[in-house]
Amino acid sequence: MSWQAGRDLPGTCESRQMRSDIVTILTDFGGRDPYVGIMKGVILGLHPQARLVDLAHQVEAQDIRQGAFLLATAVDWFPQGTVHLVVVDPGVGGKRRALAVQGERHFYVGPDNGVLSLAMRRDRPVAVVELRPGPWSLERISRTFHGRDIFAPAAAHLARGVALENLGAPVSDPVELDLEPNCHQEGRVLTRVIHQDAFGNLVTLLHRSEVGVGLRSVRVGEVEIPVCATYGEVGPGQLLACWGSADYLEIAVNRGSAAEQLGPIGQASVEVLLAGPQNRL
Amino acid sequence: MSWQAGRDLPGTCESRQMRSDIVTILTDFGGRDPYVGIMKGVILGLHPQARLVDLAHQVEAQDIRQGAFLLATAVDWFPQGTVHLVVVDPGVGGKRRALAVQGERHFYVGPDNGVLSLAMRRDRPVAVVELRPGPWSLERISRTFHGRDIFAPAAAHLARGVALENLGAPVSDPVELDLEPNCHQEGRVLTRVIHQDAFGNLVTLLHRSEVGVGLRSVRVGEVEIPVCATYGEVGPGQLLACWGSADYLEIAVNRGSAAEQLGPIGQASVEVLLAGPQNRL
Amino acid sequence: MSWQAGRDLPGTCESRQMRSDIVTILTDFGGRDPYVGIMKGVILGLHPQARLVDLAHQVEAQDIRQGAFLLATAVDWFPQGTVHLVVVDPGVGGKRRALAVQGERHFYVGPDNGVLSLAMRRDRPVAVVELRPGPWSLERISRTFHGRDIFAPAAAHLARGVALENLGAPVSDPVELDLEPNCHQEGRVLTRVIHQDAFGNLVTLLHRSEVGVGLRSVRVGEVEIPVCATYGEVGPGQLLACWGSADYLEIAVNRGSAAEQLGPIGQASVEVLLAGPQNRL
Repeated sequence: MSWQAGRDLPGTCESRQMRSDIVTILTDFGGRDPYVGIMKGVILGLHPQARLVDLAHQVEAQDIRQGAFLLATAVDWFPQGTVHLVVVDPGVGGKRRALAVQGERHFYVGPDNGVLSLAMRRDRPVAVVELRPGPWSLERISRTFHGRDIFAPAAAHLARGVALENLGAPVSDPVELDLEPNCHQEGRVLTRVIHQDAFGNLVTLLHRSEVGVGLRSVRVGEVEIPVCATYGEVGPGQLLACWGSADYLEIAVNRGSAAEQLGPIGQASVEVLLAGPQNRL
Repeated sequence: MSWQAGRDLPGTCESRQMRSDIVTILTDFGGRDPYVGIMKGVILGLHPQARLVDLAHQVEAQDIRQGAFLLATAVDWFPQGTVHLVVVDPGVGGKRRALAVQGERHFYVGPDNGVLSLAMRRDRPVAVVELRPGPWSLERISRTFHGRDIFAPAAAHLARGVALENLGAPVSDPVELDLEPNCHQEGRVLTRVIHQDAFGNLVTLLHRSEVGVGLRSVRVGEVEIPVCATYGEVGPGQLLACWGSADYLEIAVNRGSAAEQLGPIGQASVEVLLAGPQNRL
Repeated sequence: MSWQAGRDLPGTCESRQMRSDIVTILTDFGGRDPYVGIMKGVILGLHPQARLVDLAHQVEAQDIRQGAFLLATAVDWFPQGTVHLVVVDPGVGGKRRALAVQGERHFYVGPDNGVLSLAMRRDRPVAVVELRPGPWSLERISRTFHGRDIFAPAAAHLARGVALENLGAPVSDPVELDLEPNCHQEGRVLTRVIHQDAFGNLVTLLHRSEVGVGLRSVRVGEVEIPVCATYGEVGPGQLLACWGSADYLEIAVNRGSAAEQLGPIGQASVEVLLAGPQNRL
């Protein structure tokens, strides 16, 4: 049976030290289909001790930017040696490469379309290889589901301690996400919304580490929004901006939904007015 | 790294006897975001042997009553020593306390807003403590995601056998859910719908243990509904009332949806007509 | 407590050899309720080493055909000895039997309504038994949730190595799915859509093994659709037909949704025109 492929692949001591047995999975597969379950079957067939954690499967279909952002906000909270398996892969079956990455703390497996690149800014890559079918992959590679045939087996082998260099040849130019950086100006930063969470919070691309000073306020279209430390600092139904749990600036409504309240303008440019350094939030 | 906080916390023999390594998670986080996965990363970083079970993540946003009800219907089916982690937390970052509870059979972790209180009626609390940041919590506590920074670490430590009293100071007055009790009258009980399940079944607050006799019928608005033991006792598309799988009275349609068929009146008061004690269902 | 029922049931050496500890779960329970979590609690209470994998829980309510199809597409990817627990069960509480099946590679547990029958065509049954309440089931059997009271305990016991014959009496006539076979004609096959996946791909009932030759094209209503090996062989927004990842023919749109583009006719009959044997795809 195909899931037994690669059982005899050697591990190395170096990578074994980073082993956590945890494999996270992030996809745009939704919940209607057994695709995620099938990948888990493949992983458990190769590495029965794997501990599987769903990150999210409702990334907008083929939305590489959203997938990259959600991955980047999540990885810090996992133990060293965790393998992050990401399948947001509009180019499956075409020419895009398949990658496995060893960062300083974690491993990453996914298509070479930029979906891994934001996480790699925070966990610098030590080595990157191109995954090509081999003794470690499933025997038969489909044209439409590399998540099952290539990425899941690679993740399973990394989780069980196989060294990255056994899975492919080095790559020096992984694809960077096509994402305009925030625009820093005198006294303000222009950024934009990258993700709307389940509560209707609008999460922007502005990371706390990008601004060395406090924030005075935030403007979305004509709406001026106060900067707060917690939701409860404004009344119920009132807009506020705050540093979210992943340290990105987000726009929220106390006990409500900013996405609903702002409507389409919530997707426009967001203007962040900076305070002096003495007003650091 | 912050998830390593608390690794050296001592366990105690007493609580170790109740260890099951199971942590259930119930939230209103939906499926769009990696928030639940992040909490799992924190738990596995502190207790790699944890067995994580999702209870539900589609509680209506900030609906404490629904979360409390779903928790109460689920806990009986888990082994002794299970830790139930509940994050339905509209007051996060404000003054509401964070709690950990040791019941006779299980542990509970969540905000002190009543969301744990219905389960505690069925699994009497032996001890309740207030969780304050400490050696067991993450080093940095955000203002918006205590699920990750406080509740998940507390649940992980309880699951690995740390004694409750190590996590905080005793609390004697946990918040009770603001929930009008069912109204018992001569020959009838007035109750109401607390939850609509995925099949469109309307689940009421009336528990089987509250009525010592059989039921004659159920009335919703002008609609008279027969009481049955199984869905198949009425024809396809017909309404019925029955004791649901968690022993709460529910209104269903055989091979259909009661929520669709009854519409908004399904959310109104439900009148339950009692039979004599000899007709016990 | 009821979940402790059956702890002392003996296992046998034969079935132990097939043990994988993996239990997959496929239901139409959706994500709003703790029903799936409750089944997991029951399983972990009986078999703490169980490795639980969700296959899908958004099967259309009571859609036995879709459940049967999704199961059949998934089982090949799991290791030998996996237990597949399926609860799509419109007849719960009525006269339908409850089954456990030992195939050549896997075990199956579910209602006797045909939902297991497509998988059993690919993993021939070695033995089939009818599950009746006994020392292995929960003590109290509800009328509406056999997933929890009968199927989950049976799956747990099979996963921990209990022999199938300990769970019930042999059955020789499990229910077959009521499903019209594909119609093979001179130079063409008539099939139809059985499942729409989260990307809007329309998956037909035609398995690659049913046609010994290549395909010339596919017709849906008046629309002629080219047959491709990968999505990228047509332009973005263009329709194509291809063998999907489970080897069923599917209709897709490159970087789009076939379900949206074809609308209701996508649910009609699908005509597959065969090429000569020399054109084998």
